[in-house]
Amino acid sequence: VEAVKMSFADQTQFTPLVVCELAEDTKEEAVEWLLSRIKEKQRNGGDRLLPALSQDDKKENPNIFLVGASWQRLLIGAEDLGLIKEFSDGSMRTFTYANREDFKDFQGDGDGFLSMAECQLIIKHELDTLRAKQETYVPGYPKIKLYPGKSIVRRMHSKGILLQIFPLHDKEELKRLSSTWYQQIRMAFQPLDDIRRYFGESLALYFGFLEYFTLAMLPMAIIGIPYYFFDWENYDNYVVFAICNLIWTTVMLEMWKRFGACLAYSWGTLSRKKAFEEPRPGFHGVLGHNPVTGREEPVYPNAKRHLRIYLVSLPFVLLCLYVSLCVMMVYFDAEGWVLGLHDVEPTFWTGLLLFLPSIVYAVVIEIMNRLYRYAAEFLTDWENHRLESTYQNHLTLKVLVFNFLNCFASLFYIAFVMQDMPLLRQSLATLLITSQILNQFLEAFLPFWLQKRRNKRVQRNESQTALGSKLPFEKQVMLEADMSTYLGTFDDYLELFLLFGYVSLFSCVYPIAALLVVLNNVTEIYSDALKICQVFKRPFSEPAANIGVWQLAFESMSIIAVVTNCALIGMSPQVKSYFPESESQLILLVVAVEHVFLVLKFILAFVIPDIPKHIQIKLARVEFESMEALKKKVNEGNSSSFWKSLKLHITVPGQERWC
Amino acid sequence: VEAVKMSFADQTQFTPLVVCELAEDTKEEAVEWLLSRIKEKQRNGGDRLLPALSQDDKKENPNIFLVGASWQRLLIGAEDLGLIKEFSDGSMRTFTYANREDFKDFQGDGDGFLSMAECQLIIKHELDTLRAKQETYVPGYPKIKLYPGKSIVRRMHSKGILLQIFPLHDKEELKRLSSTWYQQIRMAFQPLDDIRRYFGESLALYFGFLEYFTLAMLPMAIIGIPYYFFDWENYDNYVVFAICNLIWTTVMLEMWKRFGACLAYSWGTLSRKKAFEEPRPGFHGVLGHNPVTGREEPVYPNAKRHLRIYLVSLPFVLLCLYVSLCVMMVYFDAEGWVLGLHDVEPTFWTGLLLFLPSIVYAVVIEIMNRLYRYAAEFLTDWENHRLESTYQNHLTLKVLVFNFLNCFASLFYIAFVMQDMPLLRQSLATLLITSQILNQFLEAFLPFWLQKRRNKRVQRNESQTALGSKLPFEKQVMLEADMSTYLGTFDDYLELFLLFGYVSLFSCVYPIAALLVVLNNVTEIYSDALKICQVFKRPFSEPAANIGVWQLAFESMSIIAVVTNCALIGMSPQVKSYFPESESQLILLVVAVEHVFLVLKFILAFVIPDIPKHIQIKLARVEFESMEALKKKVNEGNSSSFWKSLKLHITVPGQERWC
Repeated sequence: VEAVKMSFADQTQFTPLVVCELAEDTKEEAVEWLLSRIKEKQRNGGDRLLPALSQDDKKENPNIFLVGASWQRLLIGAEDLGLIKEFSDGSMRTFTYANREDFKDFQGDGDGFLSMAECQLIIKHELDTLRAKQETYVPGYPKIKLYPGKSIVRRMHSKGILLQIFPLHDKEELKRLSSTWYQQIRMAFQPLDDIRRYFGESLALYFGFLEYFTLAMLPMAIIGIPYYFFDWENYDNYVVFAICNLIWTTVMLEMWKRFGACLAYSWGTLSRKKAFEEPRPGFHGVLGHNPVTGREEPVYPNAKRHLRIYLVSLPFVLLCLYVSLCVMMVYFDAEGWVLGLHDVEPTFWTGLLLFLPSIVYAVVIEIMNRLYRYAAEFLTDWENHRLESTYQNHLTLKVLVFNFLNCFASLFYIAFVMQDMPLLRQSLATLLITSQILNQFLEAFLPFWLQKRRNKRVQRNESQTALGSKLPFEKQVMLEADMSTYLGTFDDYLELFLLFGYVSLFSCVYPIAALLVVLNNVTEIYSDALKICQVFKRPFSEPAANIGVWQLAFESMSIIAVVTNCALIGMSPQVKSYFPESESQLILLVVAVEHVFLVLKFILAFVIPDIPKHIQIKLARVEFESMEALKKKVNEGNSSSFWKSLKLHITVPGQERWC
Repeated sequence: VEAVKMSFADQTQFTPLVVCELAEDTKEEAVEWLLSRIKEKQRNGGDRLLPALSQDDKKENPNIFLVGASWQRLLIGAEDLGLIKEFSDGSMRTFTYANREDFKDFQGDGDGFLSMAECQLIIKHELDTLRAKQETYVPGYPKIKLYPGKSIVRRMHSKGILLQIFPLHDKEELKRLSSTWYQQIRMAFQPLDDIRRYFGESLALYFGFLEYFTLAMLPMAIIGIPYYFFDWENYDNYVVFAICNLIWTTVMLEMWKRFGACLAYSWGTLSRKKAFEEPRPGFHGVLGHNPVTGREEPVYPNAKRHLRIYLVSLPFVLLCLYVSLCVMMVYFDAEGWVLGLHDVEPTFWTGLLLFLPSIVYAVVIEIMNRLYRYAAEFLTDWENHRLESTYQNHLTLKVLVFNFLNCFASLFYIAFVMQDMPLLRQSLATLLITSQILNQFLEAFLPFWLQKRRNKRVQRNESQTALGSKLPFEKQVMLEADMSTYLGTFDDYLELFLLFGYVSLFSCVYPIAALLVVLNNVTEIYSDALKICQVFKRPFSEPAANIGVWQLAFESMSIIAVVTNCALIGMSPQVKSYFPESESQLILLVVAVEHVFLVLKFILAFVIPDIPKHIQIKLARVEFESMEALKKKVNEGNSSSFWKSLKLHITVPGQERWC
């Protein structure tokens, strides 16, 4: 970075933060217009723009721009974003530019006060909120319409003019982070605070949850080992194990909320208010006034959105679920038919045929998952949510339900319709192990290997022109622009969620699952860290106070787990043998036990506070002070309105009729 | 009231608001001390005290004092209490004295801006927060110890020196309220805003809930009538009725939250913050600093309170529940024994004996209820909750669980152990009707009649000395001091809760219950209104944002109702006849249906927002403004700390070592 500062000597102390890539054939006037709009902000202390990066190299895209900003501008942006930083008295307060000196770690002109990830987030926010004013179309592209309030960057992005915006890596810091994080294998917690400084809260919370989840699974894994080795066949001996598992799951999820709240508080995201979030870039509507802040921004009626959700999205999701169930039934029919065929007249070809239904089913499920994902994204986008977080929640919920059904429907069918426990255990083991291996391979090592190959090729080309172990800055930007984009923590959470399902739903059938998941998670931490540091473009930091809809998803899973485990225990032959005469008595007992467990879960969730007491007090204190401040402000308002009312009294006799 | 103002001509414009009655034999120095402490507040613009009321009449207690305050003092008190009033722009804002002119309805010196109930609440708050400073005991009573921070009024109250503090009625306004509320029978909503102005939010919310509950029951009552008259015996035909009932109950309770939020918002209690509540008068602890506000107040460690709750209160409650169940079993045994005796050799005496178990059981239940109530109050007091609201919640929960068991355990036993549906229907009808009649008689008409008699006696005595239809003010005070104290809405809610249980738990057995409850509630509105206006002393206004723990109680009841109704339907002979071979299949189906219902309930509760959108926006706006104000305040703080830091820099060279 220091080198770059030198090479662009005309721009003193310019640190490039974000890369903005336009299509190669973008019309000159559109480029000029976009640059002028960004520079317009600069005039009001706005971002600074670097001109096109590598004009000399004909092969490269000339329309790559680097965006940076002065420290002062970034600090004002931090105030606009409502970042919360540690105050000099140790409390967490909303950052204000005027008050910057009173924040902890603020020194000199503020260099180093904001992390690079925060600076990049601020610039992204500035770019995202570049909105069209009087322009009716993008200059040079009369077909790309604009209307007042439309985000320029978003429109140009969706029309393919703007290819991508991404934050730059900081090679020095990345190296430091990698070495403490994943480059040596040792017994230590992850450097969550460093991860958060480099990648933002959302990712740091994911890694925090992954670590917490792994550690929390450890007791179950250890208890599960003897059960696995000594009692394989009598799975009703697992009653105690299952009960421990159920209670532990509940307590674990409740405690995570508290732990996550501690993390989010120390990162300043716990008390960030949702209502003050800017609308997400994709949000469109007529330019109006936000009823809360009074600021100008697009508005979209809530009723319309609800209509779209309940009349279009919901029926569509239900239809997809139904189709998925039908496909599953066809698969079981096909398998039964093939099995029958093979039993009647076993030949080599029927032996091969035995594998066909499973393979076809796996492929069909994969295709359905992908198609559904596109449809869900389209629908959620079309629902036009105001906030990025609500958009993500709706998308997650849609995808989650479908994935849950696809993954577990066949297991449920085997367990409760076919009642074939050995087959259930076998399917569970197969699914768990193959999905783990496949996931880690497809998700981290394959992209890493591809990336390595690409890097080497680039480096080889490079070494022909200039010898040196360090890539020049321009090449580094090009290299990063070529990397694939990290699409958010969604798939990582989904994977954890499904693993959690395998462990909790059928724990009394397959107690070794917890151990497998722990082993998987340990490698997952390393492979995910590798993936995020080396394989993908650096993602923008995302402020997050909790794991959002995933908390709900995991809790729902743990509730379903109570039902399935109780049912499995009730179905075991040995438990059945205690009630030889009356099956209905057994069922009633199982249902009663299940209800007791559910009540217990709710009482536990009610009794354990979500936010630890000491943080509750700190939050209440800031709120109390803000209330006192409001009173004071109103008082000041009053004194001025006192003068106003006085004036009015004086002017009343003559001008009464004009008011 | 006008007459009083005249009779105490030395105190210009004094309106007596609250009556403070000390024991007749209180030592002079204690009286003097208390009066001086109250007057001390007066010197800082505090309350005004009226001297002893009726010195001439030897029979009366000389130690009755009237407390009032100037408008200015009351307005400052309103700010201390954090009252929220309507601002001139229509939003609800925390009242501040400095800004009083900008609030709606504020005219002149503020007379009439605060309702009488609010003024009385302010004075009560002032009296409650009279805390001991250096005094180690109450003057004249060396045995009544005091320590810094102890509420004087509370200590004197608990030691029997202070007999009572109560607010005075406003006869004029009470007459006006009564005439629009209950004195003529007509089709109209209750004047909730007037009730709130006169009795405060807590009571107004109770009457609002009573009305809402009655109206919401109306559809079920109407649907229930044909079921009752045409299908008495085949209660499995009530399946549709039961399903409607379950869904309706859920929706009704969710909608109440929204309706209640609207009421609370318009009354300014919705956004009142819990953390700023003063500790309840009974709260004791070492004088420390509140971690949120920084103010001096008693503190008590949370851990100790939790120990008391979980190690003493919880086991005690469980023990009581167990005892209650044992008593019920003894009752059923006794009844079976008596029935057997009567069957073997029916005589007149065994015929009489048949009634004995029921009578004894009813008496024992009543005794247990009362004993338990005392124990629960003692325990909850001993738990030493900081806020009145948490105290009430813990007390309510304790009493609720026990009452629920006492009322419904026998019905559950009849329904699910004896499986005797005609007996269940009969018990339900008996319980419902007798409890309704008894309640209304004991609760309202009997006290009203007794009060009427007492009033007449007083009036007769009065008429001997002075003829006149209107009582003199002193006599009116004496009359009100003699009335019994209203102990809060607890028993009224409890009654509604139990009625709700009768309707919802066994609705498919006895669909006419809804109609009976509607009829009961209509008369309940009148009798409760009569009771609160005529029978009891005026209660202090209690700010409340919702019906608190009762919402949870009603929701829990509606969840239990899902379970019982599904079970009852599954147990009906006609449903059983659909599954002649396999009883277990029937049970599984019933359990599945029950689970679907429970899931549906949770989805409904999740989807329907608790606070209507337009109120959410208004709340968010005030919060946003308070955040902005905080930023502004911090900015100001910054400029002053800027000067401080400047000073420090100047003085650094010489004084560095002394800092």
